[in-house]
Amino acid sequence: MLKANYIENLYALMKKNNLDAVIIAPSQDLQYLIDFSPAADERFQALFLLQDGRYFYVTPELNYEEILHCLGEDTKYYIWSDGAGFVGAVTQGLKDFGLSGKNIGVNCAVRAINMLDVAEEFDGKFFNAHSLLEEFRVCKSEEDIEKMRIAAKMADDIMEDLRHFIKPGLTEKDIKDRIKSKFAEMGAEGVSFEPIIASGPNSSKPHYSDDCRVIEEKDIIILDLGCRYKNYCSDTSRTFFVGGITDKEKEVYEIVKKSHWEAENYAKAGVTCESVDKVARDIIKESGHGEHFLNRTGHGIGYSVHEAPYIKEGNTQILEPGMAFSIEPGIYIPGEFGLRIEDIVVIDKNGNPEILNKFTRDIVIV
Amino acid sequence: MLKANYIENLYALMKKNNLDAVIIAPSQDLQYLIDFSPAADERFQALFLLQDGRYFYVTPELNYEEILHCLGEDTKYYIWSDGAGFVGAVTQGLKDFGLSGKNIGVNCAVRAINMLDVAEEFDGKFFNAHSLLEEFRVCKSEEDIEKMRIAAKMADDIMEDLRHFIKPGLTEKDIKDRIKSKFAEMGAEGVSFEPIIASGPNSSKPHYSDDCRVIEEKDIIILDLGCRYKNYCSDTSRTFFVGGITDKEKEVYEIVKKSHWEAENYAKAGVTCESVDKVARDIIKESGHGEHFLNRTGHGIGYSVHEAPYIKEGNTQILEPGMAFSIEPGIYIPGEFGLRIEDIVVIDKNGNPEILNKFTRDIVIV
Repeated sequence: MLKANYIENLYALMKKNNLDAVIIAPSQDLQYLIDFSPAADERFQALFLLQDGRYFYVTPELNYEEILHCLGEDTKYYIWSDGAGFVGAVTQGLKDFGLSGKNIGVNCAVRAINMLDVAEEFDGKFFNAHSLLEEFRVCKSEEDIEKMRIAAKMADDIMEDLRHFIKPGLTEKDIKDRIKSKFAEMGAEGVSFEPIIASGPNSSKPHYSDDCRVIEEKDIIILDLGCRYKNYCSDTSRTFFVGGITDKEKEVYEIVKKSHWEAENYAKAGVTCESVDKVARDIIKESGHGEHFLNRTGHGIGYSVHEAPYIKEGNTQILEPGMAFSIEPGIYIPGEFGLRIEDIVVIDKNGNPEILNKFTRDIVIV
Repeated sequence: MLKANYIENLYALMKKNNLDAVIIAPSQDLQYLIDFSPAADERFQALFLLQDGRYFYVTPELNYEEILHCLGEDTKYYIWSDGAGFVGAVTQGLKDFGLSGKNIGVNCAVRAINMLDVAEEFDGKFFNAHSLLEEFRVCKSEEDIEKMRIAAKMADDIMEDLRHFIKPGLTEKDIKDRIKSKFAEMGAEGVSFEPIIASGPNSSKPHYSDDCRVIEEKDIIILDLGCRYKNYCSDTSRTFFVGGITDKEKEVYEIVKKSHWEAENYAKAGVTCESVDKVARDIIKESGHGEHFLNRTGHGIGYSVHEAPYIKEGNTQILEPGMAFSIEPGIYIPGEFGLRIEDIVVIDKNGNPEILNKFTRDIVIV
């Protein structure tokens, strides 16, 4: 049984894009549609959803019991064994549902190697359906947004906790572990992504993923964290300073803070995503740090921690009530330091920005 | 700088398969080739490796510093910004390296949506290079195998620990947490996969991934766990019984134990993978439980926890010295219970099976 809200939007978008079906492998897309997503492994499995609302599921023998429990007896399953392989099950399903020669979209979790194997036996054509699967749920209901408010509050409460917890001698990993255990205590379902704790020179790498460095006196620390609450994500970043701040760090902090605040308050219904990016980017460019702002200003958020709308150059999508996204400008000076500030913003029903994160954007010295 | 052993094998396989280049997105494949694999996210990045040994790397701006640190200044990088997108960087690289119109393999981590986007702008042809990237490193050196012995010993030691640790009242998650903290204490780099703790009725789902059930008196528990040591994986399963065992459980256990033991000792240089599968499968079939043995008998293991050679029906690959794989027959009775026993076996230089796991295969009552 499909459990998604706004599912009619998806069928309409499939029709508009001339897609007869979409293949949805385990992912947040699948979680959204059926309220379950099996742990992804190398064995192919996916929901095949047709424009007319019919669907079937291809599953390894090994996972049949769990997907049956989720989708029920009335669903048509194509079950494959390790000996037989998955291609026969997929092509049989496509044939039975009249999809020979048709246009099939694939979601972000379908692997190229699996699509290539199917393409050898199937005469239809494959298309990228990623943006379509994000678009149909891009405007959130008040009920969805309330979940995001709660998730954002949990993240803010962790920042408050870390302000008192962080001190020299701890490792980045100690801080990660604290975040995870605090989110669990608060009743979150888990982190929405592996927290990023980038201290000292690591702070110049926006997506630093190691965690073994020991915090030192005078460090700068980027903290980027979020949780999942009733399937909705939070995501926030703050930059703390250990025992003091240099003049250069302070100067850069104030530029990022201004960029962040101006962009957050500029975002409203009717403006384009690229224009929000431009507000943030221009302030950093004017400061002379344009080349140190390496990423888009923000990304949408909801069931997935990164989804549409993307707040970036070249994206002419227009903001509408119910859209939720991050604003996270940063300056990253290679070999020196980096910093960013990130909140989640929702466009409210009047078209104005509601900033979900409340933790201070002023300089925090721990 | 490429750091892989046996790299000449890979070039030879590319030549044999008529592939001019392979695209290797973050994965164990990439870890093996360059001793680093960035955390995978939605931004495309990959190593492009040519049959003649040249290579280039396509990276988001955001990840440039970390990949530069790994591959050095002499590597050619194609760096893309969020505003511009990745397709231009990929097609420029393909063009500069003379790959227009050529045959390009993709590894298991390349997403179909990214390949489809590139295919719109590129006149070459894409192929599944997954098995090729596993085959070139399928025979391990004595040095590799020694790392696997150590990883296997760590997993065996955890089984011994769990034998005393497990008791009614603990949750499946408590057991998972114990496994992870014990592996960390022992000096493993981490788990090689999220441990599977399937208790009571959950045991009939071979890849059960939840963990909230509370252990009860008379439970059956499948424990499936492994770690990573110097990049090499372990993977072992045992089935424990809490406070006693029923006659039916005992009967099923003895069938699986026999299937497991016979297959382990049958595996040797010169026999096919499918024949090893058949030894295990026939014993279970003869017992009347054929329909309850849902999976292949085993999978190869090394840098990846699942890789070639696959011990399954239809696989005519011949075992050779240095190949390492699991033997893990199981019986899963839907709605009742399931159980399996799993060891890692290596074909030694004389062509005989060396069983890396030493923990008892006899019935363990905790």
